[in-house]
Amino acid sequence: MSRRTVVSGMNSVTCQISVSLDGFVAGPNQSLEHPLGEGGMRLHQWAFANATFRRAHGLDGGDEGPDSEVVEEAVAGVGAYIMGRKMFGGGDGPWDPSWMGWWGDNPPFHVPVFVLTHHARDPLGMDGGTSFTFVTDGVEAALDEARAAAGDQDIAIAGGAATVQQFLAAGLLDELYLHIVPVILGAGERLLENVGNPSFETVKVVASPAVTHVKYRVVR
Amino acid sequence: MSRRTVVSGMNSVTCQISVSLDGFVAGPNQSLEHPLGEGGMRLHQWAFANATFRRAHGLDGGDEGPDSEVVEEAVAGVGAYIMGRKMFGGGDGPWDPSWMGWWGDNPPFHVPVFVLTHHARDPLGMDGGTSFTFVTDGVEAALDEARAAAGDQDIAIAGGAATVQQFLAAGLLDELYLHIVPVILGAGERLLENVGNPSFETVKVVASPAVTHVKYRVVR
Repeated sequence: MSRRTVVSGMNSVTCQISVSLDGFVAGPNQSLEHPLGEGGMRLHQWAFANATFRRAHGLDGGDEGPDSEVVEEAVAGVGAYIMGRKMFGGGDGPWDPSWMGWWGDNPPFHVPVFVLTHHARDPLGMDGGTSFTFVTDGVEAALDEARAAAGDQDIAIAGGAATVQQFLAAGLLDELYLHIVPVILGAGERLLENVGNPSFETVKVVASPAVTHVKYRVVR
Repeated sequence: MSRRTVVSGMNSVTCQISVSLDGFVAGPNQSLEHPLGEGGMRLHQWAFANATFRRAHGLDGGDEGPDSEVVEEAVAGVGAYIMGRKMFGGGDGPWDPSWMGWWGDNPPFHVPVFVLTHHARDPLGMDGGTSFTFVTDGVEAALDEARAAAGDQDIAIAGGAATVQQFLAAGLLDELYLHIVPVILGAGERLLENVGNPSFETVKVVASPAVTHVKYRVVR
């Protein structure tokens, strides 16, 4: 039973994210060359290999199967994304207007994306339906804007760790879909710290050789 | 395909352990009243509720089902256990001979148990087939003694975190069976740190509403 039937007319706030067995969503020493930190790409090999992910990124081929279905399901009902400044990239401080994100002209979101930042910037319209809107007044304001943009579809928190933590700690997340990847990163950005004391109910588990997907409903 | 068919005649070294969603196997502030730390009992509610666990502890009743089958499987082939001093309890330093462990006259192991310690002590014979042997010369010596006691059965690392870490870091663990419980402890004893860089292959996943069980083979 999904939460949407409980909170009538309200879209869900979801997050699906790859996490190492020791709890990191990015490795240590993030940089332009290693945006996910050292070893962080190992968290995403399962996604790179699958067909749905490749289609979203304009690539052919890839594996069908449980991992691909999980990605399909995770992106299907999303009407808007929210991400942190660090995930959008371009460094700290005032914006370099030439920085348009990591993803090129046609980012893989294909819906409005709201970027949390302390520095105002005009919205960016990208190819393929993606837009980036920069929100300077916090997570609740970003959520209001994302809800308005998403209509009756879900709002997905894209990352990184700090942004997911803020939504969990504020009691604003309805669903957390973890892709648990059996690698040890040893250091980096830990997902589940500073999140208060949420309770979770397991909604579903999908297993593949590469990754164990566990969808939790956040109980408040 | 289990490792035992690969390394002919060699028993496996396994570990099955309950871990919070944020990676802890015990909560903060462990004490005589809270041997698993504050909140740590929440990791084991799923086990207390099931029939196999209750039988091992001399109790009637409990739920059958996937969680019970997991415990059944986890204890079935175990010929000896190894645990850390802290898990056996009784405080630090030289032994108080009146301390016979947390579990009473008939502990739930029912096979020889080898306790890692810096303080020599004569073995203890308990009811129900459990014995406690105190090993002062490290994990490899404990493993040798446990192998001799286990015959062709497996050796299970019972915990706690520091002991599992030593076996993982030394490349001595063949199988890690995590019971991932959807609670946040926020602090306590973290399982997967200081373990080096092992690789894991997913062997099986068993899902229940209360816990997601994932069995990994450690690849070396």
